[in-house]
Amino acid sequence: MVEEEYDLVIVGGGPAGFTAGIYAGRSGLNAVILEKQMAGGQVMISPSIENWPGEKDIPGQDLAMKMREHAEQYVHIKEFSEVTSVRKDGYFIIDTPEGAFKGKSILLATGAEHRHLGATGEEEFNGKGISYCATCDGFFFKGKDVAVIGGGSTALLYAIYLENIECNVKLIHRRDQFRGEKALQDKVKASGVQIILDSVVEEFKGEEVLGSLMVKNVRTDERTEIPVSGAFIAVGEVPQTQIALELGVELDNEGFIKVDRRMKTNIPGVYSAGDVTGGLKQIVTAAGEAASAATSAFEDLMEPYWL
Amino acid sequence: MVEEEYDLVIVGGGPAGFTAGIYAGRSGLNAVILEKQMAGGQVMISPSIENWPGEKDIPGQDLAMKMREHAEQYVHIKEFSEVTSVRKDGYFIIDTPEGAFKGKSILLATGAEHRHLGATGEEEFNGKGISYCATCDGFFFKGKDVAVIGGGSTALLYAIYLENIECNVKLIHRRDQFRGEKALQDKVKASGVQIILDSVVEEFKGEEVLGSLMVKNVRTDERTEIPVSGAFIAVGEVPQTQIALELGVELDNEGFIKVDRRMKTNIPGVYSAGDVTGGLKQIVTAAGEAASAATSAFEDLMEPYWL
Repeated sequence: MVEEEYDLVIVGGGPAGFTAGIYAGRSGLNAVILEKQMAGGQVMISPSIENWPGEKDIPGQDLAMKMREHAEQYVHIKEFSEVTSVRKDGYFIIDTPEGAFKGKSILLATGAEHRHLGATGEEEFNGKGISYCATCDGFFFKGKDVAVIGGGSTALLYAIYLENIECNVKLIHRRDQFRGEKALQDKVKASGVQIILDSVVEEFKGEEVLGSLMVKNVRTDERTEIPVSGAFIAVGEVPQTQIALELGVELDNEGFIKVDRRMKTNIPGVYSAGDVTGGLKQIVTAAGEAASAATSAFEDLMEPYWL
Repeated sequence: MVEEEYDLVIVGGGPAGFTAGIYAGRSGLNAVILEKQMAGGQVMISPSIENWPGEKDIPGQDLAMKMREHAEQYVHIKEFSEVTSVRKDGYFIIDTPEGAFKGKSILLATGAEHRHLGATGEEEFNGKGISYCATCDGFFFKGKDVAVIGGGSTALLYAIYLENIECNVKLIHRRDQFRGEKALQDKVKASGVQIILDSVVEEFKGEEVLGSLMVKNVRTDERTEIPVSGAFIAVGEVPQTQIALELGVELDNEGFIKVDRRMKTNIPGVYSAGDVTGGLKQIVTAAGEAASAATSAFEDLMEPYWL
């Protein structure tokens, strides 16, 4: 197995990984980006992005491609290179099916995946009315009928956010009470949001785009069809922390990687940025964090603790 | 005096202010940006920016204009509106020569100014060989003769950064020893960086662009002309914290605004982002922080502590 040696191995090829690559390369570090699928990250599936500063409205694929081409000026991007295991032996040794990579330091930009309901039609209408991020996509539904599905703080915040931009909001939760912060619960109850408890979405329906939800009351088994233009699903995030755990990186209470303001983890030489660190989970915050993480890696390599 | 009332008053119209405006407006907040000069911030004076993700090379003015037009879709930008005083009286009352603004919350994106040497030619060659940011502009001087002026950690880091991208680096400091971190001092001493102590730059010389420095040894009064393509001045930053201090906002040891990860200050309803909070002082980090700050303002307004 050929071992390629790098100053910094960046795991994850989304906006955080690309930005880390740009900053690492520009500071003179020899870096590589390993991406398990096609490079781009979750931004690839967003038909339209309106909150990347400077771009009023850009398809996710276009923004990802611009960032990717920018990053390729400074680092190699290896797609379909899934990290199968990682260990520290002086250097970090990162195994992929194509061979092992040696890194003096490692930057985890592995992202998070939105938990799906598993309901009928959910995949079909994903990006066609179904969204997992109100902050990203809510504005496209300004003034329209929407549903929010979930009972935690994120779901409550989505409901308030959407109500605030004049959506007609129904908040659908499978239990008889919310899990989210009390202050947010009070706010939702005082707002015009219509609350539908003890109910699950069985099916997402529509023609080209989402048109309605089939909702079942779990106590009465009664089924109701609710017409909506948008459905925001907020039933949790699954941070991709397998590699972090193998390295002994500390996670926070919600399972995201714990970092300081310079995006250092508890393990020397391990940095992290983007959705896997929790927080706002926006493209611009991921990119900002990645610039900090790569710069921290550069600064720390000035003092070679890793030998 | 007319009082205009806003959910959020953003002070400072650079990348942080623009991004805060985009996020505030999109979340339904009624926000305004107050900028004391022409909107754009320090990015305006940078002839070329190569580290804004997705733009391989963009003039600072163009990037600023794109962000500005984007922000204007969501918020008003008031230029030449210098904040003369601010106080809290239920709402925040923000005075400008054109009138008072009432804000339920306030976001300080007032930036920092690089301290200048005050040497002859410094203003003339600013952006034409003279830079105050190696992370921003160093790459343009890859492989060339450059000087770094200063003796703190930033100057040492600039020297290492530039050496790492194959510049021929001279580090000029007015005292007989450095103030910066010991680890960085050791690294500089072990590197190919040529150290020139007890010396000040009296003049920056050149035709169209910077060509040389006139350096005086303060012990011997001997003068030497040193040919360089670039000079990086790192003699400190002056964070613009007047308004923060009026509000009782806590600063860190270096005089920057102290914030938590959600960009909240110690004063409820006061948020901050960008260079005035210290850290990396990059466009992308400022923008990421501003998205967090505006979102925190939105979330906190859900619970009206301010009445």
